[in-house]
Amino acid sequence: MTRLAEAAASLVESGQRMDARGWVPGSAGNLSARIDDETVAITRSGVHKGRLKVSDIIEVGLDGAAREQGQKPSAETLLHCQLYRLFPPVGAVLHGHSVAATVLSMSGAISFSQYEILKAFGFATHEVDVDLPVFENDQDIARLAKVLEPELLEGPVGYVIRGHGIYAWGTSVEHAFWRLEALEFLLQCELERKRLK
Amino acid sequence: MTRLAEAAASLVESGQRMDARGWVPGSAGNLSARIDDETVAITRSGVHKGRLKVSDIIEVGLDGAAREQGQKPSAETLLHCQLYRLFPPVGAVLHGHSVAATVLSMSGAISFSQYEILKAFGFATHEVDVDLPVFENDQDIARLAKVLEPELLEGPVGYVIRGHGIYAWGTSVEHAFWRLEALEFLLQCELERKRLK
Amino acid sequence: MTRLAEAAASLVESGQRMDARGWVPGSAGNLSARIDDETVAITRSGVHKGRLKVSDIIEVGLDGAAREQGQKPSAETLLHCQLYRLFPPVGAVLHGHSVAATVLSMSGAISFSQYEILKAFGFATHEVDVDLPVFENDQDIARLAKVLEPELLEGPVGYVIRGHGIYAWGTSVEHAFWRLEALEFLLQCELERKRLK
Amino acid sequence: MTRLAEAAASLVESGQRMDARGWVPGSAGNLSARIDDETVAITRSGVHKGRLKVSDIIEVGLDGAAREQGQKPSAETLLHCQLYRLFPPVGAVLHGHSVAATVLSMSGAISFSQYEILKAFGFATHEVDVDLPVFENDQDIARLAKVLEPELLEGPVGYVIRGHGIYAWGTSVEHAFWRLEALEFLLQCELERKRLK
Repeated sequence: MTRLAEAAASLVESGQRMDARGWVPGSAGNLSARIDDETVAITRSGVHKGRLKVSDIIEVGLDGAAREQGQKPSAETLLHCQLYRLFPPVGAVLHGHSVAATVLSMSGAISFSQYEILKAFGFATHEVDVDLPVFENDQDIARLAKVLEPELLEGPVGYVIRGHGIYAWGTSVEHAFWRLEALEFLLQCELERKRLK
Repeated sequence: MTRLAEAAASLVESGQRMDARGWVPGSAGNLSARIDDETVAITRSGVHKGRLKVSDIIEVGLDGAAREQGQKPSAETLLHCQLYRLFPPVGAVLHGHSVAATVLSMSGAISFSQYEILKAFGFATHEVDVDLPVFENDQDIARLAKVLEPELLEGPVGYVIRGHGIYAWGTSVEHAFWRLEALEFLLQCELERKRLK
Repeated sequence: MTRLAEAAASLVESGQRMDARGWVPGSAGNLSARIDDETVAITRSGVHKGRLKVSDIIEVGLDGAAREQGQKPSAETLLHCQLYRLFPPVGAVLHGHSVAATVLSMSGAISFSQYEILKAFGFATHEVDVDLPVFENDQDIARLAKVLEPELLEGPVGYVIRGHGIYAWGTSVEHAFWRLEALEFLLQCELERKRLK
Repeated sequence: MTRLAEAAASLVESGQRMDARGWVPGSAGNLSARIDDETVAITRSGVHKGRLKVSDIIEVGLDGAAREQGQKPSAETLLHCQLYRLFPPVGAVLHGHSVAATVLSMSGAISFSQYEILKAFGFATHEVDVDLPVFENDQDIARLAKVLEPELLEGPVGYVIRGHGIYAWGTSVEHAFWRLEALEFLLQCELERKRLK
């Protein structure tokens, strides 16, 4: 199996899992995996992420341009490429729209503390305070990427765009999914805790 | 495959997806697709939308009357026909009863603002204020259709009948499902946000 | 297929659906169907309702006694038999423990008004006020049945035992499931509405 | 089938069920079954519990050491071994991270009263007050086990580690899952009730 075929199969499966949890309503979300130093496989624009076909995964360069003429990658491709460019270990990026991420991002800053599952992000203990950065939404993705960059360089566990959704990443598609699951779990916990107050 | 067989297969699948999300309890909901300028395929009355058989999809005219004698279309067939009559691009209509749509419709006006997913309805940006009209429920469907019509002509993203459920539509069954999913996502977000207040 | 085999197949499937929605945690719940004027098929004691085998469905008389020596029917068999005895059209009874039914039953009276889905119970309109009776839990099932009987004779849409769960019924297993789904939908709506207050 | 193969098959299935309910995000959770007086089968470290392979279940002694050199059991293996050592009837232990267990453990003491489902833990009636002990989280598992031990000897229905998750057990993997399901049901009910206040 080629690296592209392998990546596509993993992304198709991750999309199904994200859909089963309600994280990719309509054509929301986009999923990618690194193919090599110069190439990324990413979902094309305007498809449902829960019902991806292998042919819905296309190749782009790190500049976000489709390798094959006429193919249209996701509108947010540049945000994926930015992560691959900044962090060589990143092998996959998953972006979804969950209710918890959307609602919390519209209601103030987000941070996590005293959760065991924070160890999934490499912390040695639950006794840490971890911020999940929230950025203002912007339809100009190149401009949004520029705003993100300084904070990305500080190595956050992921980030959220207000009213829009979450970005998570990892060394592989499976690892990125684990981190996405951990972040969504933390967001659900925070949402419940806010309600109890 | 005939146009009817194709429409029926899509509606059966959409019904299963709606059921998996809890949007069609009991025999609630009804689903339809346009066959041609004068004919609509719609679920017949009194069947569970999560376990539709192809034979549960029957043909009606734009006046709501069954093509085949003795067949009984959904009680709300006229609301589907109204959308096909008013909007030539509409190819499918989905109606379900979700908890979020029902509860919010019983608790005031509904509007959405600053959500990225609003772009699914053709807006160029998230920076819009979009109302989801809520109408009083009425067992007289012809009368209800008349009340709806002026507001429908303004091209809403969908509508809700109070204590009853949501109507969504699109150019195809798949497109209508995407818009239904986007609306249900927005309703869940609004319900969560109301609780945080 | 014998009537028992047919009933067992339907009950196994209903148990799976109830499990998928989280209504039968552990060995909670019990499911039955009428076989003939004198016989009822019911789940035996101490099995998981989401993983029923056909052999987990056993026959009892209307007095609740197992037809075959050594078989042990559900502890609440008498509550099922009571419904079959009182109402000849009843063909199936489903009892589950949902979070919504349990929590609402511990927090006061339950009634439904202005919901379209109330029509599933034979009402001609949504403009009705419908009570769902809540009874105190009692480990003495024969005594509990006696307390229930006067209110059952008034023909409620179902009933709830406090901190315990819901009883729903219908003319067939499928019909009973539709009514159970409608009741659980109404309970979820009421739980959400209580939170918004 | 060997006892290990049988245990592994049951644990793989339980992991899938826990994943379907969202109780094992990322690589969270760990699952084990007793093989004999001196041996326990347990999930190895760093695998997703919803997608376990039989080879992800490895053998350890009651001291928590892997039988086969180079294999790395779950970091919390000692907490499993402690339960097998203290309670000879215990045949399986399941640990997951649910939102309800995590959130409630961060918000005070947890106790259950007047729930029918408490009978799943051997109580003769719902009229009991049952505490679910909550312990402070600690990355030193041997030290945590020592803190747990006195309260474990009082025979609780399970326990929760703050911000971390729940431990449940039973005579078999199936029985442990029933008790886990019952505890999670109770925790969800308590979370809902706290919100209504």
